[in-house]
Formats: sequence, C-alpha cells, structure tokens
Amino acid sequence: MTSQKVNLADKLSKFTEHWAPRIVAGYNGNDIMVVKVEGPFVWHSHPETDDLFLVLKGEIDIEMPGHTVTLGEGELFVVPRGVEHRPVARSEAHLLVIEPAGTPNTGDPETAVRKERL
Amino acid sequence: MTSQKVNLADKLSKFTEHWAPRIVAGYNGNDIMVVKVEGPFVWHSHPETDDLFLVLKGEIDIEMPGHTVTLGEGELFVVPRGVEHRPVARSEAHLLVIEPAGTPNTGDPETAVRKERL
Repeated sequence: MTSQKVNLADKLSKFTEHWAPRIVAGYNGNDIMVVKVEGPFVWHSHPETDDLFLVLKGEIDIEMPGHTVTLGEGELFVVPRGVEHRPVARSEAHLLVIEPAGTPNTGDPETAVRKERL
Repeated sequence: MTSQKVNLADKLSKFTEHWAPRIVAGYNGNDIMVVKVEGPFVWHSHPETDDLFLVLKGEIDIEMPGHTVTLGEGELFVVPRGVEHRPVARSEAHLLVIEPAGTPNTGDPETAVRKERL
C-alpha cells in the first residue's frame, strides 16, 4: 500500500459517489483518503481525533457553531477534535482528508459509510 | 493554530530557503509542513515514523535502495518507517509533508534543521 505512489486525480477519476471517502494510502495508522463532496453533510464531531481537510478542487464551507471557514483549492483546515462541524459544498468539490484508520466519517459508527480502499 | 485556514501557496510565498520545512498546521500531534526543495537531500531514514510527501508544484525523485519513485504535482508517496531514502529535486519543487512533531528531518537530531512555524 504505502510503497506505491498515488496520483490523486487518477484516484478521483475512479468513482463518482459523494461523501464516500476512498483510502489511497496509510500513514502511521491514519487513512489518507480522497473524497468527492456536493451539498451538505451532517453535523458531527470526532471526540478522539482532529479532522484534516485539504481542497484539491472546488470550494467547501466548514460550518462550525458560530463561524464558517470557506476553503478553496490549495487550502487546508484542521477541525480540532470534539468540535461540531458540517462540511457543505455548493457544487462538487474534491478533497484530501486524513483520519485515524477506523474513524467513522459521521462521528457515529451507526451512520458512517464504509471507507473503501482504492 | 488549527482554527485558521491555511492557504498553501500563500505560506510558500513567505520564504525561499530549500529543505527548511515550515509548520503550517497541526493534526493529532503531527506537524503539517510546506517545504521548498531543490537538488539532493541527504540519505536518511526515520525508524519511528512513516514519511508522507505530497508534491504541490514541480517534480521530485524519492530514491530508495534499489528503486526510485518520481512524483509530479498532485502525487503523494509514503516512505514506510525505517526505509532509507533520499529526496532529489532536479529543479525547485514545493511539497506538503507530514511528520510527528519533533521528528528530525534528516533522521538525526544532530543534523536536522529546526522547523519553523509559519
């Protein structure tokens, strides 16, 4: 897994679903993932981990209680652990995200999507 | 630190030195850094951590014993912990790198550069 180089655009060309992260590499027990997003996600938080977003294409809002951060291409933001947030994309955006392996994307194993490896 | 968005190009415009990573964010005890590179770095390894490279601009070779991986813009590679490697850039390239806070960039605290926070 970690001994192959990863072309992010190539990985993103292999699927169309929104809010369904694909694992493309591993780093010290973390999943490095690409994801296509459009529209609003659900409000959630991760009590045990920070949540890193890097915009590869398009633009997203990270809504948090009391403020919103808008990220364009080449911009990153780390949602600190425990902070409620809702990512929203007005049109399709492509992201690189990093989370410890096994972290439910909704913050809740009951509603989380299974992260496929690409 | 982690509550500000980070524009990677903007951070990269603030320095010119090569092989001197700048910390731009934190994620679960890891430093998220940008670095400008040109020419060959030193052969080294990190016994305790994987080493993640994402090329933001330009091209680099990651030389390892027996093989070399060439990375262009939008390509990432994780050097597994303990694996000897030497990054080489034929012309200036810009990278995003992730390492646990405090990891010496040369694998050796004696020769490592101090990573500044930007």
